[in-house]
Amino acid sequence: MKFIEGGVCAAQGFKAAGIHVGVKTKAGWKKDVALIVSDVDCAAAAVFTKNVVKAAPIHVDKKHLENGRAKAVIANSGNANACAPMGEENAIRMCQAAAAAISCDPMDVLVSSTGVIGQTLNVKVIEDGMADLCAALDHSIEASDAAAHAIMTTDTVKKEVAVETTVGGKTVRMGGIAKGSGMIHPNMGTMLCFLTTDCAISPAMIKTALLETVNVSFNRISVDGDTSTNDTCMVLANGMAGNAEITEKGEDYAAFLAALQALCIELAKMMAADGEGAKHLITCSVKGAATEAQAETLAKSVIGSSLTKCAIFGADANWGRVLCAMGYSGEQFDPEKVDVHFTSAAGDVAVCAKGRGLDFDEDLAKKVLSEHDVEINIIMGEGEAACTCWGCDLTYDYVKINGDYRT
Amino acid sequence: MKFIEGGVCAAQGFKAAGIHVGVKTKAGWKKDVALIVSDVDCAAAAVFTKNVVKAAPIHVDKKHLENGRAKAVIANSGNANACAPMGEENAIRMCQAAAAAISCDPMDVLVSSTGVIGQTLNVKVIEDGMADLCAALDHSIEASDAAAHAIMTTDTVKKEVAVETTVGGKTVRMGGIAKGSGMIHPNMGTMLCFLTTDCAISPAMIKTALLETVNVSFNRISVDGDTSTNDTCMVLANGMAGNAEITEKGEDYAAFLAALQALCIELAKMMAADGEGAKHLITCSVKGAATEAQAETLAKSVIGSSLTKCAIFGADANWGRVLCAMGYSGEQFDPEKVDVHFTSAAGDVAVCAKGRGLDFDEDLAKKVLSEHDVEINIIMGEGEAACTCWGCDLTYDYVKINGDYRT
Repeated sequence: MKFIEGGVCAAQGFKAAGIHVGVKTKAGWKKDVALIVSDVDCAAAAVFTKNVVKAAPIHVDKKHLENGRAKAVIANSGNANACAPMGEENAIRMCQAAAAAISCDPMDVLVSSTGVIGQTLNVKVIEDGMADLCAALDHSIEASDAAAHAIMTTDTVKKEVAVETTVGGKTVRMGGIAKGSGMIHPNMGTMLCFLTTDCAISPAMIKTALLETVNVSFNRISVDGDTSTNDTCMVLANGMAGNAEITEKGEDYAAFLAALQALCIELAKMMAADGEGAKHLITCSVKGAATEAQAETLAKSVIGSSLTKCAIFGADANWGRVLCAMGYSGEQFDPEKVDVHFTSAAGDVAVCAKGRGLDFDEDLAKKVLSEHDVEINIIMGEGEAACTCWGCDLTYDYVKINGDYRT
Repeated sequence: MKFIEGGVCAAQGFKAAGIHVGVKTKAGWKKDVALIVSDVDCAAAAVFTKNVVKAAPIHVDKKHLENGRAKAVIANSGNANACAPMGEENAIRMCQAAAAAISCDPMDVLVSSTGVIGQTLNVKVIEDGMADLCAALDHSIEASDAAAHAIMTTDTVKKEVAVETTVGGKTVRMGGIAKGSGMIHPNMGTMLCFLTTDCAISPAMIKTALLETVNVSFNRISVDGDTSTNDTCMVLANGMAGNAEITEKGEDYAAFLAALQALCIELAKMMAADGEGAKHLITCSVKGAATEAQAETLAKSVIGSSLTKCAIFGADANWGRVLCAMGYSGEQFDPEKVDVHFTSAAGDVAVCAKGRGLDFDEDLAKKVLSEHDVEINIIMGEGEAACTCWGCDLTYDYVKINGDYRT
């Protein structure tokens, strides 16, 4: 398995486009609508936010995915179409406009939106721009790049990854674009992720693979503890790689899953690193735990702690806040067995052994925590299980971005 | 019932003191040790943090409260004595030093600490300063004020409240001092609260009253979602008001409880308003809920949302974030029945009706949200239950304070 270029256009038979049509009305002429189309019908699956308040596109997608098939995805940024007047009607109109332009059944089009909540979506500009959007459809690297940009909101960098692997003796490619910066929290933050692959795999197995992947990637990142109304991760598999269709678990499924997980963990880390206002990617690894579930809960609690996030922002080796966050996670454990050390490219500093503070070199600790990528390593002394989660620091810029998001 | 002056010295027979002994080694000569002493033995009760990682004084207090009696409280700021070498030993030494100075059994002294986690407490300076601390003990308003200051960490204002009521035909007074600014979250943030009363009440009933009070006051505030290792709320009742001892629920208990709850809700609101870096006190009221538990969960989720807190900081009427936070609270409800309006001294603005955005006057909304005290009012349309919780906004200063807390 290797990482390659091309994003959602890396797999055979996928075209993409991203242009500005006018949903975003400020900040220049940023792209605001993306389209991804497969040359042939695809097995498709998606996972959505667990928020009780769900955006309109999610209700539409659930209906469109009942048969486990799809051919295209249309997505806009700048308006979330959540809690908005005429929400479902406008989401359906987006599907209809795309379907008419690419000549398919509207039921085979999936739809996503991201942006401000509660305002009516200007669907007219999307319909009017559909001809231009279709004209821009292309198999190129640049086309995936344009689509990746068109779904960005407060993201500062595009998120685009692709991998190549071998399944049943055939070369299989898969790629994805994603957005997500604020409102990121385990169980899907405001993130959109669109994945494409040319692997031949049944609707049932692509759904299984997607769930097994989301749980170890996007559900292990947190930016701010807010779970959005719009979170969506979709995958389209068009089978053009020519492998024998995966219809059950086995060697082929394992190879496919490993590649999909690697792809999505990369996208998830890019999201965490690009958390709103973030200056650091924080990787929290819990080892020696009794169970993986315990390790995951503890790691998530640490990366979700505002106080820990502020300490990393200040490059302050305040490990007490790490123990404190573990303590209120809801998991039971013996604090007197816990070791903690901070690690980065600048070195490693042990700060806590058996639940008690160590004398450590404050200058070294400052250097370690001043790197962009910082690891919080926790050893529980309880068992063999482990889990890694990713987050970011809490900065002035997070407050600034979210103090005046709408205007 | 009326609010009066005097804090922990308002009730008959209580003395207090607060001085600087040297636990805090920077920021001038701020007070860092407080002592509260009753002239006579008291019924006593306390509630502590639910964090698995508990500070040493909490383990000591649990033993000292087994008989439901106490006579004094010694507390320091500047060091939390949590995850620290010789934690319990040092906490016991604080009790012993205070007991020797005021001539009582060390088992009748309660102890609390707040400040940095993981560093050895300099108990020697507390022991050395005990004579000065005892010399400062006094029944005056100024003595309570000094104690209130001595437990502050990042607090910007002291928290001190007292009330007077009538129980069984006798005038009963009660008062409290508290600290708490960061790490404040439902189920006890880093808060310390010491309450005194001259009411005659049994150990069993004072414990019941304290639990019934904490649940509707301190457990309904949030600053940052971090629950500390040290949270403690204690009450001492010395019986000097001369009322017939309260030994069961009834009219006298109800009068006492009403006063205790009013006292603690005031202290809780003062904590929320003084949240680290806060510029606003946010009151979130949920009405028309199916149950009080549902209303409480929803209100807590809203005041705990980083995105909502940032929006209030920016005086941005981004009500979508309110609905979003309700949606991920874990409670089930119908978003299509929800109304939201923002209220303050500057006016009232309805922003959402039946789950859909309303056209509203943005200038008025800005004015409403620019007041210090801001209300988020939510009407569920599901039943008759209600709950109010309190929080604060998320600001640059919160990040600044917590980016470099230790140094």
